[in-house]
Amino acid sequence: MRKVAESTVRRLSLYLRFLEEFEHDGVATVSSGALASRGGTTSAQVRKDLSFFGSFGKRGLGYPVPELAGRLRQILGLERRWRVAVIGAGKIGGALVQYRGFQQRGFDIIAIFDADPGKVGRQWNGLRIHDVSQLERDLAGTPVDIAVLVTPADVAQPLTDRLVKLGVKAILNFAPIQLSVPDEVAVKTVNLALELETLSYALVNR
Amino acid sequence: MRKVAESTVRRLSLYLRFLEEFEHDGVATVSSGALASRGGTTSAQVRKDLSFFGSFGKRGLGYPVPELAGRLRQILGLERRWRVAVIGAGKIGGALVQYRGFQQRGFDIIAIFDADPGKVGRQWNGLRIHDVSQLERDLAGTPVDIAVLVTPADVAQPLTDRLVKLGVKAILNFAPIQLSVPDEVAVKTVNLALELETLSYALVNR
Repeated sequence: MRKVAESTVRRLSLYLRFLEEFEHDGVATVSSGALASRGGTTSAQVRKDLSFFGSFGKRGLGYPVPELAGRLRQILGLERRWRVAVIGAGKIGGALVQYRGFQQRGFDIIAIFDADPGKVGRQWNGLRIHDVSQLERDLAGTPVDIAVLVTPADVAQPLTDRLVKLGVKAILNFAPIQLSVPDEVAVKTVNLALELETLSYALVNR
Repeated sequence: MRKVAESTVRRLSLYLRFLEEFEHDGVATVSSGALASRGGTTSAQVRKDLSFFGSFGKRGLGYPVPELAGRLRQILGLERRWRVAVIGAGKIGGALVQYRGFQQRGFDIIAIFDADPGKVGRQWNGLRIHDVSQLERDLAGTPVDIAVLVTPADVAQPLTDRLVKLGVKAILNFAPIQLSVPDEVAVKTVNLALELETLSYALVNR
């Protein structure tokens, strides 16, 4: 498969959300223009994004909603469920564990880990917080697909190395550092201070 | 000023973080190659990113660390403090209010609002949670620069309209919808389910 830009993948996720609303409302076909206006982009961009993945729709008739939604779910890996471990039972970890949006999209949090003895053993949303020193033992029997890393910066890289050794192939990283991983591991870093800086940039460069 | 891509602005934030580490360690000059390796990019990209904002450094001598750090803080709007209101005192709102990274970068949370009478009046990190129905009255006297929206999707757009009327020019949006705002208002949407979908995409398209 050709290398597809992350910005394209993000737009596919947005198109899918709109298609699912149309599906819910019983709309049979949708134009690239309608998808574009909901995704904040242009018809030409919608057609280009979708063309990466084959031929959809007929000129003048628009895209068939259920078929395109199904194909996008397939492309985005949403036709199956994914097993997710959360590493770090702090405030953000707690918010993520209770966030229903993950489960709705097929991401099941199946384990939580922390280093704090005061937290280990507590129950969060029906899941027991495990001791992160036992990561290897606990995940050996129940492998996870995706790890969500919500730890201080100084322990994020050593934890990443351990997760990679355990076979984790995707990491959503909230620690404020750039993680170093082998090529076959996907990392997505969410840095909330950096998001605010894109706004302060916009405010001073209006 | 030329239109600068958001990806460029994000790299400037990353360069600044590395420069501040170098500053802290007393390093006087840094090569584009060193900045590139820390930012996961190339020397050519570093030179191109910085060239948008003028001339820095001397060929063969590298960039002067304190000067470049100062200039990036200026470009990113980090030489002043910003007043931030958090709308939505849920789990994620609570995590954000306690997140020290914001204050360290110049973003001061000065107000929290919620619609739940059970939450209004409580103290969070020394700030009283205000009734969101009183948004106009409370923010009239103490204008904010940036609003962080952490509400359910169905109330996000009406709240955005009220914030825009109050003169808020930048919104960090965690609600899972695309907000509609006038051109002069900057919006950055953080959608955590969508971040996980870029990972599931990577897992099925390896």
